[in-house]
Amino acid sequence: MSRPGDRFAAFRRLHHADRPLFLPNAWDYASAAALAGDGYPAVGTTSLGVAAATGKPDAAAATRDETLALARSLSRLPTLLTVDLEAGFSDNPDTVADLVGELAAAGVVGVNLEDGRGDGTLADPDRHAGKIAAVKARVPELFVNARTDTFWLAGDADPAPVDDTIRRAGAYVTAGADGVFVPGVRDATTITALVADIDAPLNVLYLPGRHTIGELAGLGVARVSTGSWLFRVALGAAVRAVDAVRRGEHRDGPTAPSYAEVQRLISADDRD
Amino acid sequence: MSRPGDRFAAFRRLHHADRPLFLPNAWDYASAAALAGDGYPAVGTTSLGVAAATGKPDAAAATRDETLALARSLSRLPTLLTVDLEAGFSDNPDTVADLVGELAAAGVVGVNLEDGRGDGTLADPDRHAGKIAAVKARVPELFVNARTDTFWLAGDADPAPVDDTIRRAGAYVTAGADGVFVPGVRDATTITALVADIDAPLNVLYLPGRHTIGELAGLGVARVSTGSWLFRVALGAAVRAVDAVRRGEHRDGPTAPSYAEVQRLISADDRD
Repeated sequence: MSRPGDRFAAFRRLHHADRPLFLPNAWDYASAAALAGDGYPAVGTTSLGVAAATGKPDAAAATRDETLALARSLSRLPTLLTVDLEAGFSDNPDTVADLVGELAAAGVVGVNLEDGRGDGTLADPDRHAGKIAAVKARVPELFVNARTDTFWLAGDADPAPVDDTIRRAGAYVTAGADGVFVPGVRDATTITALVADIDAPLNVLYLPGRHTIGELAGLGVARVSTGSWLFRVALGAAVRAVDAVRRGEHRDGPTAPSYAEVQRLISADDRD
Repeated sequence: MSRPGDRFAAFRRLHHADRPLFLPNAWDYASAAALAGDGYPAVGTTSLGVAAATGKPDAAAATRDETLALARSLSRLPTLLTVDLEAGFSDNPDTVADLVGELAAAGVVGVNLEDGRGDGTLADPDRHAGKIAAVKARVPELFVNARTDTFWLAGDADPAPVDDTIRRAGAYVTAGADGVFVPGVRDATTITALVADIDAPLNVLYLPGRHTIGELAGLGVARVSTGSWLFRVALGAAVRAVDAVRRGEHRDGPTAPSYAEVQRLISADDRD
């Protein structure tokens, strides 16, 4: 993983392998270091986690600086890094491309760009395609994962927006997107239809209890990411543990890394 | 909790109540917001958690800026806040007092100041007492929890450093410390001796599986904090969850807060 070009190519190859890329998402340095140390070849970030860790709302274009600072701090980890940029923190394609250029200079090999907007509506697909094109023009080797929030923002009562998803995915791939991410898609039939009709590696969100990685592999999914799930698991586990102590229960401790293990985690992290 | 003076007094009273103050330690905005939302009247920070979350070593005076920025972001939460300052991030008492003045201006009601040094040795007790005196001269109402690392830094084979702990605690209380924190103390006999011979509320670290809060209350402990434990529990839970998915196991999801719950957590956080 020495030359930048090798890292871009390595990340791209993970989307065209026999098994899907299983991509865990980190929210701070420690979580990324733990995942890298645990052998994941690539790690993503989660915009909800980054926003919550820093006390800002998600999907509100509020965390550009925090996202860039985190990406820079993670660049020394021995893993490939892809960064969740929400909608790019700007409506100006050149501004989004500038940010991606900075991220690539910091060693980032991929980004997510979503067409969902903070107000719960979907962006015009041509405008979103314009951002993708601007980013690919600036850093052609970088893997742009175009996220469409057709399912994510649909209500439970709405019909599955398969046709709109395929139309949007087509526009984004034509603009240069290297992969398409459809969070919130749940059933096997729909996933199969999306794999068949989208001409790029399909990324779905891991939904606890819904599918295993093996089942998603069988449906033709190329990438499975965890989104904000690990961040939420972490937060929930901490609150449950402390509440049990407050209630007067005994809690055992062997399931947490030790103080010394965490100190090692944050010091032994050279890329090379 | 409107006027600053009321908050200082409220935090002090929690150390002189019928039950010990059970103080959970947060490492970022989300964890502090979750704990505040869960009804803890006071929340501390953990220097290990803050360091690891930002990719820096603990107990190395490396996270002054991150600690201050975090404290400022937490000041809008509806809980009393005390901040772990390691050894104050400086050997100069006036510089430490300047930092505490900034923290108090941001609404912080207490700090921890430790006599352990990054190289694993203990500071000269008179020098540490000088920091405490400088801080109390600057912000008299603020609760200074003087931490001595006599037990924390002792090897397992060393005799329990009870006498040195009591001598150091005496010097710190004379300098103005409002409480004394002895992390790493484990057995009931030692805790009882420290309670008897230290003329200030005694804070011990919660050790999973060792004592319940009720047992520590019975020994006369005034404050029980969780240190880095919750941070480590959170990190361990996330890694275990993702590893189970990687192994192909089904995981259920009801134990994590939802995306919407986290968004509410980071938006509904007004102090008043």
